[in-house]
Amino acid sequence: MGTKAAIKQDTRNALLQAGMDFMLEKGYTNTGVQLVLSSLGIPKGSFYHYFESKEAFAISIIHQFDQEYSTKLLRVLRNPLRSPLQRLRDYCEAEKDDFEKQECRKGCLIGNLSQEMSDQSSLLRDELANVMAKWRGLFADCIEEGQQLGEIIQTVPAQRLAEFFCIGWGGAVFRATTLKSLEPMETFIDLMFNEFLRG
Amino acid sequence: MGTKAAIKQDTRNALLQAGMDFMLEKGYTNTGVQLVLSSLGIPKGSFYHYFESKEAFAISIIHQFDQEYSTKLLRVLRNPLRSPLQRLRDYCEAEKDDFEKQECRKGCLIGNLSQEMSDQSSLLRDELANVMAKWRGLFADCIEEGQQLGEIIQTVPAQRLAEFFCIGWGGAVFRATTLKSLEPMETFIDLMFNEFLRG
Repeated sequence: MGTKAAIKQDTRNALLQAGMDFMLEKGYTNTGVQLVLSSLGIPKGSFYHYFESKEAFAISIIHQFDQEYSTKLLRVLRNPLRSPLQRLRDYCEAEKDDFEKQECRKGCLIGNLSQEMSDQSSLLRDELANVMAKWRGLFADCIEEGQQLGEIIQTVPAQRLAEFFCIGWGGAVFRATTLKSLEPMETFIDLMFNEFLRG
Repeated sequence: MGTKAAIKQDTRNALLQAGMDFMLEKGYTNTGVQLVLSSLGIPKGSFYHYFESKEAFAISIIHQFDQEYSTKLLRVLRNPLRSPLQRLRDYCEAEKDDFEKQECRKGCLIGNLSQEMSDQSSLLRDELANVMAKWRGLFADCIEEGQQLGEIIQTVPAQRLAEFFCIGWGGAVFRATTLKSLEPMETFIDLMFNEFLRG
């Protein structure tokens, strides 16, 4: 890559990272393109050298977020030192710790954008739905492994349990964000892992 | 009430209803006060005769919504012709039907505003949290009745089961709104009522 192309790539990455932070903090609508540019000292008007539109910018941010998040997720869900049920719980506990560090703000970028934008942009909605389906598949693989070992209930197919898990965990994050409290996450973890999932 | 006061009250109610519809459709940030006024043909600038601020307007909308919703909720949750577990399920099924009629748009005003505003206004957040706690209490009463009849599991206190139910149902509505699909609601209803709650 030539120096010019490398600088362009670096600028693009910096825009994605700053855009991700702003959208997590303020949502899509409240994240003005000018705000992102000026936070990096990039001249006004140069945005369209990097992205076709604000919507295209958000889609690239979603891809970037998915890539980073999936890597983190797989590290937990394929941890050979823990049983599948423990790994699922590790995931929730780690998310809860992160959420606490962020002082119960922000939640999850995919969840937030979904709620804000799914009625307003079918392009964004489709991207967000793809990411959600992909993550559910990763959870289902882990649940299936737990079912084979007999530590997770076998009366419900893994994909269906994974969907229930994602529904419930999404609801817990959502409620925790609203109430500025870890309690919804703790309640979900307790009942899910001590009562409902155990085989 | 004099004619003038009655007209003022009518105008206030019309503003609340229109504001509720807009906020459900577009969220708080995208609902301009001017938009609400002009949808009713009310002159610009007269808004502050009725409400101190946009935030105060939203709080009155939340109260109004809570009042209407609680009435509907209690009609279902205290239906003497159905068992407590059936009533809880009736609630979910009715919500699902409403959601389908609205073509999988909108979701719940309280949920939407929570997600959008809890980081941005502690006043709104506190109001929304109060409403959520009140509704959870109504579900807990119904669950407790079901536990006394032995049709709902007794290993978890009613308040805690109610919190899990609200977390999960909130997640199901959230996911259904994003995916424009009834499936998350159906999955939640199936697993919750056929697998997890049954005593």
